[in-house]
Amino acid sequence: MILTVTLNTALDITYRVRGLRPHASHRVSEVTERPGGKGLNVARVLAALGHEVTVTGFTGGATGRSVQEQLTGTPRVVDALVPVGGPTRRTIAVVDERTGDTTQLNEPGPTVTPAEWAAFQEVYEDLLPSMSAVALCGSLPPGVPVGAYAGLVRTAKAAGVPVLLDTSGEPLRRGVAARPDLIKPNADELAELTGSHEPLRATQDVRRRGARAVVASLGKAGLLAAAPEGRWRAVPPAAVHGNPTGAGDSVVAGLLSGLVEQLPWPDRLARAVALSSATVLAQTAGEFDHTTYEDLLGRVTVSMETSAA
Amino acid sequence: MILTVTLNTALDITYRVRGLRPHASHRVSEVTERPGGKGLNVARVLAALGHEVTVTGFTGGATGRSVQEQLTGTPRVVDALVPVGGPTRRTIAVVDERTGDTTQLNEPGPTVTPAEWAAFQEVYEDLLPSMSAVALCGSLPPGVPVGAYAGLVRTAKAAGVPVLLDTSGEPLRRGVAARPDLIKPNADELAELTGSHEPLRATQDVRRRGARAVVASLGKAGLLAAAPEGRWRAVPPAAVHGNPTGAGDSVVAGLLSGLVEQLPWPDRLARAVALSSATVLAQTAGEFDHTTYEDLLGRVTVSMETSAA
Repeated sequence: MILTVTLNTALDITYRVRGLRPHASHRVSEVTERPGGKGLNVARVLAALGHEVTVTGFTGGATGRSVQEQLTGTPRVVDALVPVGGPTRRTIAVVDERTGDTTQLNEPGPTVTPAEWAAFQEVYEDLLPSMSAVALCGSLPPGVPVGAYAGLVRTAKAAGVPVLLDTSGEPLRRGVAARPDLIKPNADELAELTGSHEPLRATQDVRRRGARAVVASLGKAGLLAAAPEGRWRAVPPAAVHGNPTGAGDSVVAGLLSGLVEQLPWPDRLARAVALSSATVLAQTAGEFDHTTYEDLLGRVTVSMETSAA
Repeated sequence: MILTVTLNTALDITYRVRGLRPHASHRVSEVTERPGGKGLNVARVLAALGHEVTVTGFTGGATGRSVQEQLTGTPRVVDALVPVGGPTRRTIAVVDERTGDTTQLNEPGPTVTPAEWAAFQEVYEDLLPSMSAVALCGSLPPGVPVGAYAGLVRTAKAAGVPVLLDTSGEPLRRGVAARPDLIKPNADELAELTGSHEPLRATQDVRRRGARAVVASLGKAGLLAAAPEGRWRAVPPAAVHGNPTGAGDSVVAGLLSGLVEQLPWPDRLARAVALSSATVLAQTAGEFDHTTYEDLLGRVTVSMETSAA
């Protein structure tokens, strides 16, 4: 069983409209809804790969109930979300039917009280012993202390559970200092954390700061991994065009499933790249097609990185 | 007790953002929610005026539950909404904090099945005998026949209950032929219905088509009424600037309350104009300030219209 933590869960809503014009009125032609927030996206991909997953984090209000109703219908996903007084945030992606471009509106999320934060930490600690790995994903909702992930990393390590951290800014900086097993920054997050725009140098720096391993997602350039076992680059067979929403969450799911299956690093990276590319190519944002994934998997190039940082 | 019918109820959501730009990502700084759809807005104003109101129409899904939870907290409003399988629509008003301009996104609403439509008609017929008046308000959701309002007007008349119809397009055209006691078109709806852009002529034409009385809302020019008892113009004391959202619903509430209180026509019209202006002036869209309303009420000019149509 894998645990994913999503402190700022969301109800992701997608609207299709014919040409978005500021200050005009628009008729939405199609509405879709699904559970969102990085950890829930990671859980959905892990479940699609055949893993049993428990999801925790916060849920509240009518939007939280909608999220939980949809989770109940997802095979291999166990709902261990913790109630909060405020409503789970909505994110609205307005897709322009004519251009395919997306305009995003993100609610801030409920303010979490100290008592709710304490209740969550207790649930988290109770869940850990039965988990083979844990992923801590996404932004912090208002009210949760900036050092939250650092504390959750320490608790996981004390329980002997491998922990992956995927966040940004100050919560990432503090989380890295708590020595997580793996972080997965993108190029911007890596540069913000280290001050270096040179990925090789930056990944080494992140390891010195405390992360046992780091996998940087560099967009079309694929993944760059630095671990105690070595350094690798993993590149998709060809540049893929499509919707990058959820591609990073698919990388996390690929790495985490490879970790619990004790795959060698090159196989973990190949899986992460193939899943990510299959997600970009999918019709529905954040989903992936199994056939596309299997096809790409055999064609990812993974090479050892030998140059000095 | 007054009955308002809202076949396409809504959860009205307002977002405040700092500058809306198509294809960008926006952080919503403030989220507000309230029950919406014209009939629910009319009910809220009637209740604020001290009237007991029953609301009916359709409700479904998590959004419908949110609407009903908020109605439960509104004094003098009784919830008699009928369940549907699909979710109640959301409307999203995105207010640009810098300019005050609003961009509107409207979901289409649930598709109503023939069985659900039949269930509603039964509830409506059961409610009518205890009502002093009924208002039929707003657009029809998918699945409801275009002649729906015509049927509901006939049922009300058969029960001896005065009926006000506030809709547009073909549902209005058919509804007028069923001889409602009062309709409240705006200038565009009046022109679409009659083919005439001359309001005096058009209001007379609408009466020939079947409406016992018509009150046309002409924006800054106030109201023009044509009834068996005479014709009047009612004009606010000065042009008001603000948010016109809900101003038409306040006119309906003013006319309907005046009807059940058996006020003379000039008093009904003065009330409707004062409520409408107070709504435009209010900080929150669709609300009104009682002191502003009372102040305006004494300063509305109502004059008999003597010119020939």
